[in-house]
Amino acid sequence: MKICLFNNHRLGVVEGNEVLDVSSVLPLIGTAEYPYPHGDQLIACLPELMPAIADALQFARRYPLSKVTLRPPVANPGKVIAAPVNYQAHLDEAIKDTATFSRAHVRKIQETGLFLKATSSVVGSDDPVCIGLPDRRTDHEIELVAIIGKRAKNVLAKDALSYVAGYSIGLDITIRGPEERSLRKSLDSYTVLGPWLVTADEIENPHALAMTLDVNGEVRQSANTKDLIMDVAELIEFASKFYTLEPGDLLYTGTPEGVGPIRPGDTINCEIERIGNISVNVEAS
Amino acid sequence: MKICLFNNHRLGVVEGNEVLDVSSVLPLIGTAEYPYPHGDQLIACLPELMPAIADALQFARRYPLSKVTLRPPVANPGKVIAAPVNYQAHLDEAIKDTATFSRAHVRKIQETGLFLKATSSVVGSDDPVCIGLPDRRTDHEIELVAIIGKRAKNVLAKDALSYVAGYSIGLDITIRGPEERSLRKSLDSYTVLGPWLVTADEIENPHALAMTLDVNGEVRQSANTKDLIMDVAELIEFASKFYTLEPGDLLYTGTPEGVGPIRPGDTINCEIERIGNISVNVEAS
Repeated sequence: MKICLFNNHRLGVVEGNEVLDVSSVLPLIGTAEYPYPHGDQLIACLPELMPAIADALQFARRYPLSKVTLRPPVANPGKVIAAPVNYQAHLDEAIKDTATFSRAHVRKIQETGLFLKATSSVVGSDDPVCIGLPDRRTDHEIELVAIIGKRAKNVLAKDALSYVAGYSIGLDITIRGPEERSLRKSLDSYTVLGPWLVTADEIENPHALAMTLDVNGEVRQSANTKDLIMDVAELIEFASKFYTLEPGDLLYTGTPEGVGPIRPGDTINCEIERIGNISVNVEAS
Repeated sequence: MKICLFNNHRLGVVEGNEVLDVSSVLPLIGTAEYPYPHGDQLIACLPELMPAIADALQFARRYPLSKVTLRPPVANPGKVIAAPVNYQAHLDEAIKDTATFSRAHVRKIQETGLFLKATSSVVGSDDPVCIGLPDRRTDHEIELVAIIGKRAKNVLAKDALSYVAGYSIGLDITIRGPEERSLRKSLDSYTVLGPWLVTADEIENPHALAMTLDVNGEVRQSANTKDLIMDVAELIEFASKFYTLEPGDLLYTGTPEGVGPIRPGDTINCEIERIGNISVNVEAS
C-alpha cells in the first residue's frame, strides 16, 4: 500500500493516479496532552490502523494526484539518520575531486559512521528546495529511505528488515565544505521525503531497486541499491548499536555516484523502482 | 524563575529546597491531534503561561526537592544543537593528545560548525548515564545550555539573547573516536539536561558564569563561560544562518578543558553559577 499525507493533514492511500482520502481513521490515533509521546504516532500505530484504512477505502473520496499537495509521509520524525558515502563509486568520485569534497569527510562509512539531519529540514516532494546559502556549492543526492516502524535497539541485521514500516524516496541536499555533515545538510528544506510511504510488504528486496535522478532532464545519478556498501539491514544493525530507533525515524541510506550542483530554477526528477517518482523545484530562499 | 518537569509529567517551580506543583496550568497548552505541532509547546507558550504560573504558586502543593524525580526541563525538543571545541584551552588539550582525539575532529569551531545530537539521547539529571559501548573511551563534558524560546532565522548576535527562554546545565557525554560527532555523542542517555530551566531574565549575562565538574569528588573541569570562543549570541547567529531555530531547541554551547573518562559506578557532580547543580550516576547499560 502507498500511504501519503496530503493537503492540510489529510491521510491518503494512492491507487494509480488517484489519492483516496482515509482521514476518517486518524482519530484512532487519539489526542495527546503535553508532553507529546516520542516517535511518530501514525507510524507507531500503523499495524493497528491498517484494517481500518482498508475499510475506509471503499467509501473514500477520490482526488486526482495532480490536484493534491503531498506532505512528508512522516509528519513527526524523531530523528533523521543518514549514511555517508555508502556506494563505492560515490566514494571513488569524492576521493578524486579534492577541490569539492573536504578531505576530512571522505572516509569509509564503517569509520565515519552515520550522521543526523535536523528534523526541521524535512519537506515533502511538492515543496521546493530553497537554496539557503547561495554562495556555497549545493548538491543533489538521491537516496532510498527506510522508515523505521517500531522501537529497535541492538537489532541484528538478519532481523532488521522486520523493523521497517516502509520506504520512500529521499533527497539529501548537501552543501559542500568543511563543516560537520549534521550542519551543512540540515538547512530548511534540505531533506526531501516523498512522494509517499510504500509499505514494506510491497518491497520484498530493498537491495535490488533501480534509481535515477535527472536535473532538467539531464541524467545525473543512475544506480541500484544492490551496490550499497552497507545495506539497509546492516545500517539498522549499526545504528541500533549506538541508539534506540523509534517509530518514524528516517534512515537515509546514502547516495550513489553522480552528485552535482543545483541552482534556483532547476527541477530535480527522481525515480526509485517500486516506490514512484518525484519532481522537486529548486528556488532561491 | 526556576521551572522544572518532575515525576510523571508534573510542572514545577523550584524555590529553595522545594518544588511547587503548578501542573494546573498545563491544560492551557491544550491537546493536540496527529500530527503534533513542531517545537516544544511548553516553551513556545511560556510567555503566555507565566502569569498563570505566578497565580498557581500561592495554592501550589510543595514537595521537598529530594523527594521528586526531575525530568528534562524540555520534554519535546525538536533538535539538540551542540558546539564542538568552543573553549581555547579544550582545543589545546585536544591538539596535544593525538591518541585520544581523532585528528579529523580537532579544528576550530568556525570551520567545524555545529553538530546535532539525537533527541532520543536526552535525559534528566535524576536519570543515570548508561555506558552503551563499554569498550570505547567515554568522557564527561559539562556545558552551559541555552534553551531557544521562539522561532529564529538569520538572527544577528546583537539581538540573539532575546530568543533564549532560559538556561540549564548540560552534559554532552562523548565517545572518543573517528565517527561523526552526531553518532558517537547520541547514545541513549548521553545528553543530560537539568536540573531545571532558569528563565533568561534571571541570568543577565550568560558569559560570566563559573562552572565546575567533579567525578567522585575529584575536580576535572573548572572554567567560566567568559572564555567561550563563540559566545551564546554568536552561536545563535551562526546556527540561524543555516537552519530555523524553534522553541525548545537546545543549544549546548561547548565544553571547557579537563574532559576525561567516566565508568559505571562514578558520580558526576556539576555546578553552574546562577543555575544550580546536578549529580548524575554512571551505570552499565
